[in-house]
Amino acid sequence: MTHKATFYHAGCAVCVDAEQRLAHALDPAEYAVEIVHLGQQPGRIAEAEAAGVRSVPALVMGGTPYHINFGAALSDLRQGA
Amino acid sequence: MTHKATFYHAGCAVCVDAEQRLAHALDPAEYAVEIVHLGQQPGRIAEAEAAGVRSVPALVMGGTPYHINFGAALSDLRQGA
Repeated sequence: MTHKATFYHAGCAVCVDAEQRLAHALDPAEYAVEIVHLGQQPGRIAEAEAAGVRSVPALVMGGTPYHINFGAALSDLRQGA
Repeated sequence: MTHKATFYHAGCAVCVDAEQRLAHALDPAEYAVEIVHLGQQPGRIAEAEAAGVRSVPALVMGGTPYHINFGAALSDLRQGA
């Protein structure tokens, strides 16, 4: 059975790099990774926030947010939405 | 062929969680992950620093450092070493 992992990003350079390198590096036999672009899907910002995401890029696995480097604060995305 | 990935940590709770969840989630067919405890191997702090690591836990893949959340600053580890 695969576990769900959600990668939230906003299209920034830091985000794209982390997506290519890290989000796509997870074991496909174990994880089903969903990629969510919060700039294009602002309706999901609240969901990311509820999972504890404070900045992007971030990977949520097993309900825990893992912030990877720093691209943009979630609060800034909300202002732009 | 597997690529090398190095996970640097210092035994902190944030580090252990990231190791369990993220470092061990990489596709074993693609990545050979080396786990380095900088508290136990202070001789490798310089190597981590040279790779651009500023805090732990961090994963270095393809020469790029990915800082995962924040456990401790590398400078603090150096002072303790």
